[in-house]
Amino acid sequence: MANPFVLKLQDLKNQSAANVATIFSQGNGSFGVQATDPLVASAGTIINGFYEQAPITYGETAYGYAKNHQTIIALPSLRQLQLEDQAGRPAVSLGAQSVALDMATGILTAVYGVSFAAAEPAALTLTVRSLIGEADADLSAYLLDYQVKSLTYQGALTLTKPGLALAATAAAAVDPDDPRVVDRGSKLTSATLASTAQTLTQTITTQTSQLTAQVQMAGIGTDLRRVVQLSPGAQFELTYLAQLDFAPHRDLQPATAATVTALRQRTATYWHDFWAAGEVKISGDEQLDRGLHFNLYQLCQSANRTGAYSIAAKGVSGPGYEGHFFWDTEMYMLPFFTYTQPKIARALLKFRYQQLPQARQRARELGVSAGALFPWRSINGQEASAFFPAGTAQYHLDADIAYAVGLYYETTLDDPFMAKYGLPILWETARFWQNFGAWGERDGQRCFMFHDVTGPDEYTALVDNNYYTNRMAKHNLELFLKYYPQFQACAQLPVTAADLAALQEIAAGIYLGFDPQRQLTPQDDTFLNKPLWPLASTPAANFPLLLHYHPLTIYRYQVNKQPDMLLTNLLFPGEKSPAQQARDYAYYEKVTTHDSSLSRSVFAVLAAQLGYDDAAYQYFLDSALLDLTDLQGNTKDGLHMANLGGSWLSVIYGFAGVSLQDGLLHVNNHLPQKWSGLTFRLKIAGRQLQVQLTKDKTTVELLSGAALEVVIAGQPTTLEAQAE
Amino acid sequence: MANPFVLKLQDLKNQSAANVATIFSQGNGSFGVQATDPLVASAGTIINGFYEQAPITYGETAYGYAKNHQTIIALPSLRQLQLEDQAGRPAVSLGAQSVALDMATGILTAVYGVSFAAAEPAALTLTVRSLIGEADADLSAYLLDYQVKSLTYQGALTLTKPGLALAATAAAAVDPDDPRVVDRGSKLTSATLASTAQTLTQTITTQTSQLTAQVQMAGIGTDLRRVVQLSPGAQFELTYLAQLDFAPHRDLQPATAATVTALRQRTATYWHDFWAAGEVKISGDEQLDRGLHFNLYQLCQSANRTGAYSIAAKGVSGPGYEGHFFWDTEMYMLPFFTYTQPKIARALLKFRYQQLPQARQRARELGVSAGALFPWRSINGQEASAFFPAGTAQYHLDADIAYAVGLYYETTLDDPFMAKYGLPILWETARFWQNFGAWGERDGQRCFMFHDVTGPDEYTALVDNNYYTNRMAKHNLELFLKYYPQFQACAQLPVTAADLAALQEIAAGIYLGFDPQRQLTPQDDTFLNKPLWPLASTPAANFPLLLHYHPLTIYRYQVNKQPDMLLTNLLFPGEKSPAQQARDYAYYEKVTTHDSSLSRSVFAVLAAQLGYDDAAYQYFLDSALLDLTDLQGNTKDGLHMANLGGSWLSVIYGFAGVSLQDGLLHVNNHLPQKWSGLTFRLKIAGRQLQVQLTKDKTTVELLSGAALEVVIAGQPTTLEAQAE
Repeated sequence: MANPFVLKLQDLKNQSAANVATIFSQGNGSFGVQATDPLVASAGTIINGFYEQAPITYGETAYGYAKNHQTIIALPSLRQLQLEDQAGRPAVSLGAQSVALDMATGILTAVYGVSFAAAEPAALTLTVRSLIGEADADLSAYLLDYQVKSLTYQGALTLTKPGLALAATAAAAVDPDDPRVVDRGSKLTSATLASTAQTLTQTITTQTSQLTAQVQMAGIGTDLRRVVQLSPGAQFELTYLAQLDFAPHRDLQPATAATVTALRQRTATYWHDFWAAGEVKISGDEQLDRGLHFNLYQLCQSANRTGAYSIAAKGVSGPGYEGHFFWDTEMYMLPFFTYTQPKIARALLKFRYQQLPQARQRARELGVSAGALFPWRSINGQEASAFFPAGTAQYHLDADIAYAVGLYYETTLDDPFMAKYGLPILWETARFWQNFGAWGERDGQRCFMFHDVTGPDEYTALVDNNYYTNRMAKHNLELFLKYYPQFQACAQLPVTAADLAALQEIAAGIYLGFDPQRQLTPQDDTFLNKPLWPLASTPAANFPLLLHYHPLTIYRYQVNKQPDMLLTNLLFPGEKSPAQQARDYAYYEKVTTHDSSLSRSVFAVLAAQLGYDDAAYQYFLDSALLDLTDLQGNTKDGLHMANLGGSWLSVIYGFAGVSLQDGLLHVNNHLPQKWSGLTFRLKIAGRQLQVQLTKDKTTVELLSGAALEVVIAGQPTTLEAQAE
Repeated sequence: MANPFVLKLQDLKNQSAANVATIFSQGNGSFGVQATDPLVASAGTIINGFYEQAPITYGETAYGYAKNHQTIIALPSLRQLQLEDQAGRPAVSLGAQSVALDMATGILTAVYGVSFAAAEPAALTLTVRSLIGEADADLSAYLLDYQVKSLTYQGALTLTKPGLALAATAAAAVDPDDPRVVDRGSKLTSATLASTAQTLTQTITTQTSQLTAQVQMAGIGTDLRRVVQLSPGAQFELTYLAQLDFAPHRDLQPATAATVTALRQRTATYWHDFWAAGEVKISGDEQLDRGLHFNLYQLCQSANRTGAYSIAAKGVSGPGYEGHFFWDTEMYMLPFFTYTQPKIARALLKFRYQQLPQARQRARELGVSAGALFPWRSINGQEASAFFPAGTAQYHLDADIAYAVGLYYETTLDDPFMAKYGLPILWETARFWQNFGAWGERDGQRCFMFHDVTGPDEYTALVDNNYYTNRMAKHNLELFLKYYPQFQACAQLPVTAADLAALQEIAAGIYLGFDPQRQLTPQDDTFLNKPLWPLASTPAANFPLLLHYHPLTIYRYQVNKQPDMLLTNLLFPGEKSPAQQARDYAYYEKVTTHDSSLSRSVFAVLAAQLGYDDAAYQYFLDSALLDLTDLQGNTKDGLHMANLGGSWLSVIYGFAGVSLQDGLLHVNNHLPQKWSGLTFRLKIAGRQLQVQLTKDKTTVELLSGAALEVVIAGQPTTLEAQAE
C-alpha cells in the first residue's frame, strides 16, 4: 500500500522544472525555498512579506486610489551549489532523476545527474536532502545535505557553496497579458557582514521599501569552498545550514553540528504533532489520500506563525499575485488552522489586528467616518489594489475577517484572544458597516443597504445589495453584539449605549433579497435582470473569460467566476430550506465558469451537503488535485493556497458535514460512494477529536480533554472523557 | 454704447498671463495660437489632432483596455519675438498694457511694455496685431504685425523673428492630482527644410505617432533678423506671416505682400459672413451680450472645417483634456453649427464617418458582434480612455452622434450627406445597440435593456438601463428606420428585411423606466435606491467632488456631476407632460453639483422652458460667462468649449424656446425679465431666418430663401419669401 506521506516526481502530471520547483517547495510560513535545480542559477527563495514598493501608475488617476505597488521579491535560491571539474569546467545538470518529499518528516530528497559537457552522460550524481526548520521567532533555518557520488568521474572536484548570490537570479517569466503575474523589477543591495572560510553572513536590502533580511550560510564541519578527490563509485557528503533573520536583527552565531541535530529533532517533532492534530485519511483512493496530505502539508508550510504576516495567495511557494494577502486566508484557509492548528489561526488573526490603524485610515479615504476597512490586497496593510472595482470595492473582506474571528473563538473559546484582538476587530468592522451603509426602503419596508459594492464573484462589479456582502455584514454586527457584553470590560472600547442600539437596529434591518417569482436568492439587486452568458457557445479556448473579454463585456452578463451568493449557503448552514438551497445551487451552478481556483471546492461542499454525490466527487477531484495535476496551467507561479484550504473544506464541511452551530459540533456523513472510509482529526475547545466515517457508520472519538457534546446526524451525543 | 464685438483685458476677472493667453487665443479649427507674451518663451501653438502617442500603463491591466494615450502637443508660440538692445541685452517684458480682440474682424491687438533691465520702466512699447486666416484645405496662416515704438530708447535695436523654437517651450504646468490636465512628455524633432534671410521653413515631427507638420515663417518685405535705429518717439512696423501645413505636404511658396492683402480681405469677409449667419444680440445687458459674442466667436475658431478632426474639449485654445474629442462636440456644440454654419457641422459629422472602421473594431473588442462603437475620448479614432467605467462604458456616445446626424439632416435637408455619411453612421450605431442590448422582462413586460453602462453623469457608473442611454438608443434606431427607406438606394448598406424587423421590434421595446410611487423618471435601475449625498453638509472646498472623494464614495450616493436623465427632456421636448418635467427637474436639480462645465447650460434651457425665470437666468449667467469670469479656475488650460456651445443652447433652446419638431421650427418666447430684447439668426433648410424677441412680441423674419412654415408660440405661421 502506498505511503500517503510520500510524494514523488512521477506523481506529477507536469514534470517541468518550474512546476517541480513549486510543488516540492519547502517553507515555514516565514520563508520558503522552491525545489530548484541546485546547479542552475535561479530565483527560488521567498521571504513572506519581503516586498519592494513602487508607485502605481494609473492611465487616469483619481482621489483616494491606492498609491503603491507592493511586490514580493523572488530571491536567489538557497539550494545553489557550484561544481567544477579539475579542468575548471562548470557542472552541467542533466535534471532531476528523482524527487521525493516525505511529508511525515518534512525532508525533501532530490537526485540530479551531473556532467561537465553538454552532450555527455552523467559523470556524477548530486543528491540534495533539504529541510526547513520551524521559525524560532523571526529566525528561520534551511538545512542542506549534499551528497556527491561519482559514477565515472576521476580527479579533483571543486565545490563552492554561495550565500544568496544576487547576480545569479534569473528574472521571473512574466506574461504581459496575465494580470496575475507581474514583475515590477527591483534593485536589491547586498552587503557582507562577516565572512570566514566556513561562514558567510550577508544582508539583503530593498531599495524603496527599505526592508532588510540577514542571511547566514554556514558549512557544518566543512568550508564553503572545498576541493575533493573522487574516483568512480566514491562519494562524500557536505552539510550546510542557512539561517535567515528578519528585522530586528541579532548577532547570528555560527551553526554547529549540535545546532543541526537539534533542528532535525525539532522538525521531526513538529511534523509528527502536525499530523497528530489534523491528519485526514481517505480510504479507498490512494491518489486522493496522498493529494490531500500534500494540500494540508503545503498549507501548513505557507502559514506565517509570527503574527507579522499572513498567508499569501501563493504562500511562500512562488511570487504569483505579488505575495499579497487576500480574503482567501480567512475564508478558505483559516478553518483548517482553526480546527487543527489554532495557534497558527490565532497568529493570522492577530496579523489583521495589527493592521487596524492602516484600515481605519483607509476607511476615512473611502469617505466612511468611523470604523476600519481592510485592504483588498496588501502586504503592509495599505491598499495595493490598482483596480478598485474588483479590489477596494470588495468591502466584504471586513466581514470575512470578522467571520474568521467568530469561528476561531467558537472553536477555541480563546478568551484572551477575543478580549485583546477579536473584539476590537469586530467593533471596527461593525462600525464600518454602520457608516458605510444607508437606511432606505425596499418593497415598502425600511431596511439597511449597501451600494456599489463588489462581491466575491469578480465577474460582477459595483452592484447594490450583494447578498453575500449584506449577509456577512449582518453576521459581523451580530458577532460584535454577541461578544461585546462578555468582553467589554477587558477590551475597553469606546462603545456607547446608542452605538449598541444603532448596531442592533442595523443588524436586524440589513436587506436580504429574495426573488419570489423565480424563487431564488438574488446575487444582488440587478444580477438576475441581465442576460445569461452564452456558455454553451463560448469556445473552450476562451476560458478563463477574464483573459479573453473586456471587463465590460463580462459585467453585463449573468456569469460567475466563482460562487458568490452560494458561498453564504456554506457559511450559514441550515439557514435556508433544503429546497431553497437546491434551487439556488442549480441556478448559480449553471452560470459559473470556475475561472477562479476558489470555485470548485465550494461547489464540492454544497453538492455533498445536498446529496449530489457525483457532482461533489467531481468538484472535489478537480479541487483536491488542482496543483498536482496543474489543472490551471500556472502552478509554476505558486501553489493555489486558497484551493488547498478549500479541499479541506470539501472533505470536512462537505463529505463529513461538519459545522459548528451554537457552539455544538455537527457531523453529517456524506461519504462519497467511491471511498470506503474517511478519518480526520479536529480540535474543539481544547479537546482533540477523531472522526471516522464509513459508509454506514459515523464515529466521533474524544482523544483528549474533557467530556463534550456533539451532534451526529442530528443526534446529540456526549463524548465522555478518556481515562488517561 | 459698448461694442459687443470688442473684448478687452479689463473685461476679464482673472488677468493672469495664462488666463489671458487662453481667452484671447485665435484659431481656425485647424490650429490655434494662444495670446502669449511675445517676449516670453512659452508654449502656445496648438495644432488640432497633432498628438503624441504613448502606451497607457495600468496599475492592473485586463483584456481589451485602451492601449495608447494620445496627447495633444502644445508647440512653442508663433508670437515669439526676440529683441536686443545695442549692448546685447535681451528685452524684458513688463506685461500686457492692453489687449483688445475685435471679433468683427478677427484681429487681436496687444500692447506690451518693454525694458532692458529688471527694474527699469518701459523704454519701448511693442504692439502685436495678429490674425488667423481661414484654413485653405490643410494650409493655415497666422499673420503678425509688430509695431515697436520708442518711449525713451535711443540706439540700435536687433529684432529676431524665430520659427517654431522648440527649445524655448516651457513645460505646461500640471497638477498631478487633477486628472483633467496631464503632461506625458514628448520628444519632438525639428528639421529645417529651407532657410533664407526672409524665410524659414521647418518640419516638426512627433516621435511615436509619427505626425509631421510643416511651418513656414516669412518676413513680408523684411528679413527675419533686423537691426533698426530708434530714437524716442520713433516707431516702425514689421509684418510676418506663418503658414502651417499639415499632411500631405506641399511646396510652400514664400508669402508676398499680395498674399497678406488677400488674407486680410478673406478673413474680414469670413467674420462678416459668420456674424450675418448666426449673430445673437441681447438687448439690456452689455456684459452678457459681449460674453455671448465671445462664446460664438471662440466656438467658431475651435471647429475643424476639414473633416479630418473634430472640436477638442478645449478647442485649439489649450492642451487640457489632451486635445481629445468627446461627446461634447455632438451634443453641446453641433447644434450651433447645424443652425448657423451647416458646412462646419457637416465636416464634423464626416469626421465621425471616417472613423467608423476603428469604431467597428472597437465594438468587436467589447464583445459586440456587429455595429460600431465610437471611442469615448480619442483623436485618431482609437479609444484613449484609461478608465473604462467613466470612459468606454459611456456607450451613449454612439446615440449622441446619431442624434447629431438626425438634427443636421432635419435642419439642412442635406440629402447627399445623409446618403453618403449619415445613413452609414445610423446603421452602424443602430446595429451596435441591437447586438449590445438584450431582451428581458420587466414588470411582466418583455423589453429590450442595456446593462452595465455609464450615462453622461460620471458620478454614477456601471448601471443598468440608464434612462438617457436607453432613450437615445431608441432614437438612434428610429432615425435609421426613418431614413433608411429614403436613402437605401444610394447608401448601399447590407440591410436585410429581417434586420429591419428586428430593429423595429427593438426600437419599440427599449425599456424606459418610470417610478410610479415617486412619480419620477429614474436615472437608471438603481439610482433612486441610493442615499442622497449630504450636499448641505459638504464643505464648499470639497467641490468638485471628484477631486476630494474616491469614485466609490461618489458612486454610492444619489449625486450628479451634470444632468443625465434631465438632458433627455431637453433633447425630446414635449415628450413628457409639463408636470412630469417639472417633477423631474425639481428632483434632479437637488442632487446636482454642477461639477461639470456641461451642467449649467442644460439647467438654463430647462428652467427657461419651465418658466423658472430667475433660475434660468442665474444658470445662464454662470454658463455664459464661465470662461470670462474663470468660474472653474482652470480656463488657463483651455476654454470650456462644450459650455460655450451650451450658452448658445441656453439662449436659443431656452429663452427663445427653439425646437425642431416634425421638421417644423418652433419658437416660444421665454425672454428673461432683465432683457429688453433678443435677436438671433438661424438657417433652416437653406433659408436665413432672423428671430426677434421682445417682452411682448416674437417675430420670425425670412431674410432669404423660399417660403417656410414655422410655429410661433404654438401658432403655425407661414413666412413668405422676400422679394429680392
